[in-house]
Amino acid sequence: MTAMHGLAEGPACPAPVAETERIQLGHGSGGKLSAELLRTHFLPRFGNPILLALGDGAVVPGAETLVVSTDSFVVRPLEFPGGNIGHLAVHGTLNDVAMMGAVPRYLTAAFVLEEGLELTVLDRVLDAMAGASRATGIPIVTGDTKVVEHGKADGLYITTTGIGSLGADFRPGPDRAAVGDIILVSGPVGCHGIAVLAVRDGLTFDAEVESDTASLYPLVASLRSELGDAIHVLRDPTRGGMASALNEIAQASGVGMRLTEESLPIPEPVAAACAMLGLDPLYIANEGVLVAVVAARAASQALAIMQGHALGRGAARIGQVIADRPGLVRLATGIGGERIVDLLPGDQLPRIC
Amino acid sequence: MTAMHGLAEGPACPAPVAETERIQLGHGSGGKLSAELLRTHFLPRFGNPILLALGDGAVVPGAETLVVSTDSFVVRPLEFPGGNIGHLAVHGTLNDVAMMGAVPRYLTAAFVLEEGLELTVLDRVLDAMAGASRATGIPIVTGDTKVVEHGKADGLYITTTGIGSLGADFRPGPDRAAVGDIILVSGPVGCHGIAVLAVRDGLTFDAEVESDTASLYPLVASLRSELGDAIHVLRDPTRGGMASALNEIAQASGVGMRLTEESLPIPEPVAAACAMLGLDPLYIANEGVLVAVVAARAASQALAIMQGHALGRGAARIGQVIADRPGLVRLATGIGGERIVDLLPGDQLPRIC
Repeated sequence: MTAMHGLAEGPACPAPVAETERIQLGHGSGGKLSAELLRTHFLPRFGNPILLALGDGAVVPGAETLVVSTDSFVVRPLEFPGGNIGHLAVHGTLNDVAMMGAVPRYLTAAFVLEEGLELTVLDRVLDAMAGASRATGIPIVTGDTKVVEHGKADGLYITTTGIGSLGADFRPGPDRAAVGDIILVSGPVGCHGIAVLAVRDGLTFDAEVESDTASLYPLVASLRSELGDAIHVLRDPTRGGMASALNEIAQASGVGMRLTEESLPIPEPVAAACAMLGLDPLYIANEGVLVAVVAARAASQALAIMQGHALGRGAARIGQVIADRPGLVRLATGIGGERIVDLLPGDQLPRIC
Repeated sequence: MTAMHGLAEGPACPAPVAETERIQLGHGSGGKLSAELLRTHFLPRFGNPILLALGDGAVVPGAETLVVSTDSFVVRPLEFPGGNIGHLAVHGTLNDVAMMGAVPRYLTAAFVLEEGLELTVLDRVLDAMAGASRATGIPIVTGDTKVVEHGKADGLYITTTGIGSLGADFRPGPDRAAVGDIILVSGPVGCHGIAVLAVRDGLTFDAEVESDTASLYPLVASLRSELGDAIHVLRDPTRGGMASALNEIAQASGVGMRLTEESLPIPEPVAAACAMLGLDPLYIANEGVLVAVVAARAASQALAIMQGHALGRGAARIGQVIADRPGLVRLATGIGGERIVDLLPGDQLPRIC
């Protein structure tokens, strides 16, 4: 009944597609183009109350309240000083769960592998994931592997999903920053992005900068047990850096923010690399640092807890939440001026995580 | 303190890496090479009791017992008769959750987008996902988007993670096939793989073959409510087809299986395409078909439930679980002979889902 006619005729030449009608690298930046892509293409289609909360993950009601977070990791190169894509894939997703105030419990991992990937490279990545899973005590409970032809990926991409349980007593969220709150950062900023950039571009520094990739949950647990609900917002400033994280918080909470430049813990090598390359450290990705917006009465104690913890030794108080100019983040510069720390329109450093 | 020395010297020429030390396309087949990759590279590193159960997803204990399943979708081309990658990404993961016996509740979705992807293509994929999400009633509760340079992906890849709740009274599993059980399939086999292959290779048929992509949960719910625990195993035979699914069940349960060739519901166009292309329909992927291994006493009723359901009109009884030759699947051919239906060593059709 069925016959085949061999090769069908090719389709007619399609009309050319304008650049603005195509995906650009800037759509992956975590900045304005990313937000626009999400707002105009994704959210109108998938809108539901849980997704529209737009946190780092999803709170899904159940007999026990769960947090779910998912991220794809596409960092280039796969390995860099201080870690590899496997560390990021475990720590990054666990951190998103922890920033929601949840206790991370389970991870899943899905791999897109490029034909020709060296198995020794794969094994180093898997070792990193297994080591991070063991160190954090969070098992990878299910997974998937797919293989695509050589030239259809870049070594490998990893997507991890984290599940955590959320208590009723600890619900930090990006919309909870209140006027008068103090803004803290748990450690030096810019290390991850500069470490990746340096190895990618073959730059060498006198002092090597290493990625800060780490699971931040233990630090969150300390803050929670001591200060509980006085911790209003937690955020790990990854893609898009401190600037993007703070802008999102200012907008979600409808508050202004004022940072002081001299208080920002920017390591000398990061500052030097940024100065040379024309980059702003506030936009550089971090993978083991958190921003906390804390009630003023708890700020000193929160800072002390951070500084007494292995993950927060370099913690600093960097600014305050203010009523003036809601949605804007401003930086008081060392020379007495002030500038607006805006969202980037596109991508400063693509494929950083 | 820090200086940069411009471009570092390149690394020394590395020793060549043998082909067997690299990822091959066959590693993505769902056959022997896939199993070997999983066994030698992934499981030794991540081994934990939940992962080692190696179902389609993970059962994670909690106040309410959850099932979690994750899959990356890399089908080429992105669109094919009967659906697109977005349908697969929703249905495929929901089906994995449903095959575990759970009620699907939530989905997450992570996207790796290639620079230059046409936004109209992205929108059709997102529309498919949104439509499938609405039709199944399962919300996409969180997500992520990353962008990689042109030439570092193939349009887009999607990773979805599904979460479902599992009751104590319904626990089908690949290790529960028992001697005497009847093997049923819910509909015609081979449609998805042939539909993708035809459009990929520009083949035309008199009767177009469309992908069977569908969410199978409603059919599972009917079987569960009528027959409960008499349903021993449920499996959706996707990548690797019926042959791979049945081999996995036979091995996990330590039983033999005997199929009868004339009972297999293979549509005429699928059979014709397979004959012409030298493919075996038992290895062709399906995206809207389930295999059920059912207690003999419940088999007739299970078949009737399937045939009375929109998702199971083409259901058939295809074989029986036997004690003889545990771990082997055998097929009684129309001409009175018998052949072993083995796992494929590598990939018959890469990037089919």
